[in-house]
Amino acid sequence: MPEIGLFDAMYSARSLRRLKSDPVPEEIITRVLDAAIRAPSAGNAQNWIFIVVRDAEQRRRLGAIYRKASGIASEIYRARGRPAHMTDEQYRRFMTAGAYLWDHMGDAPVLLVPCLRERVLPPRDALPLPVQALYEGELAYERRIGGASIYPAVQNIILACRAFGLGTVMTTNHIRCEHEVKTLLCLPSDVLTYALMPIGYPIGKFGPLTRQPVSEVAYADRWGVAWQPSEEIT
Amino acid sequence: MPEIGLFDAMYSARSLRRLKSDPVPEEIITRVLDAAIRAPSAGNAQNWIFIVVRDAEQRRRLGAIYRKASGIASEIYRARGRPAHMTDEQYRRFMTAGAYLWDHMGDAPVLLVPCLRERVLPPRDALPLPVQALYEGELAYERRIGGASIYPAVQNIILACRAFGLGTVMTTNHIRCEHEVKTLLCLPSDVLTYALMPIGYPIGKFGPLTRQPVSEVAYADRWGVAWQPSEEIT
Repeated sequence: MPEIGLFDAMYSARSLRRLKSDPVPEEIITRVLDAAIRAPSAGNAQNWIFIVVRDAEQRRRLGAIYRKASGIASEIYRARGRPAHMTDEQYRRFMTAGAYLWDHMGDAPVLLVPCLRERVLPPRDALPLPVQALYEGELAYERRIGGASIYPAVQNIILACRAFGLGTVMTTNHIRCEHEVKTLLCLPSDVLTYALMPIGYPIGKFGPLTRQPVSEVAYADRWGVAWQPSEEIT
Repeated sequence: MPEIGLFDAMYSARSLRRLKSDPVPEEIITRVLDAAIRAPSAGNAQNWIFIVVRDAEQRRRLGAIYRKASGIASEIYRARGRPAHMTDEQYRRFMTAGAYLWDHMGDAPVLLVPCLRERVLPPRDALPLPVQALYEGELAYERRIGGASIYPAVQNIILACRAFGLGTVMTTNHIRCEHEVKTLLCLPSDVLTYALMPIGYPIGKFGPLTRQPVSEVAYADRWGVAWQPSEEIT
């Protein structure tokens, strides 16, 4: 395994969208996935499936679906406008980087699609009465926590890619055309896709991740009570 | 920052539910949160808020809500039964560990609640016509990807805690009683909670994470085509 410190990896694994077409060794992808599955999942169910798309024709088709879905996304971004925490220049760069990917998704040597098989309750009338009474709430709960069983693994993928010198980015636009993606990847109806991650050796560089500071996004004990960092983070 | 290799952290950050009551220095919590916010979020929106609960009375009340929610969870677990990939013994240990937490959540010195402010579209009739046509699909899309903006940060929290020698676990049971949690934490109506993480110095030890192997959860190019690891992971 490559030697990289945890914090080095977390602080430099920025989204890299410009990737070389050089192939990525199968063994490295396996190691990235082996790191992914160390993540937790709800009830430790591990109901994840990872589709590793390397076939050129499959990548081309997946890229075309992503392009179409991104057309929808661009309308929404335009309607929503710049997030308050970004400067005009940051927003311009963010949109330019995104637009590059809209046209080049299929060029990445590896497209990784993390999926989850939906956990379903048995039919309502097969359940004991106390559980039947909870049924609707439980369905809503499962929908709410779906991502808890896959996005921790996605973050491990991002960090493991960083360690191997691979660029990637978590994208979700394709979910706007998920039916087409599922058909292309031959997914069963109860398997949903949660991300589309281009992976390859980056043209750009890893580097620091700029974020709103902790002091602006953390509260002590209840909403509205500032969490005061006791010292500057260095 | 503590020196720990990325892979060491990912492979040993197992769920630790038995925690000492010793306080955790504020500075360390801030560093954990500073690592959390290096994670990606959908559209880089960073619409996360972290509530750090240390006040004893707030922890006691949050623990009581968690206990109530876990009562519901235990009915559901019983109805669902043992996941196919766990042995009877693994399942027994999993349920015993979970049950311990149901009764001791409030005893952890820190309860961290990662939240997201919902991204909302402007009112439909304030939008350009092409976006109005996409409105329903976009609402469904936002619900599907909600977790993409918070669970990567949750995984960074788990890994950063591991580095600082802190035990934690990602739990979601409290969402079954989320209204009570939101009232207790004074959350605005458009802020949702996504996890409840007890944090403290562990009584147990960090250790290897047993998982279904990659060969059973990965496919090449499309569903059903085995992804063959080219060598054993060592």
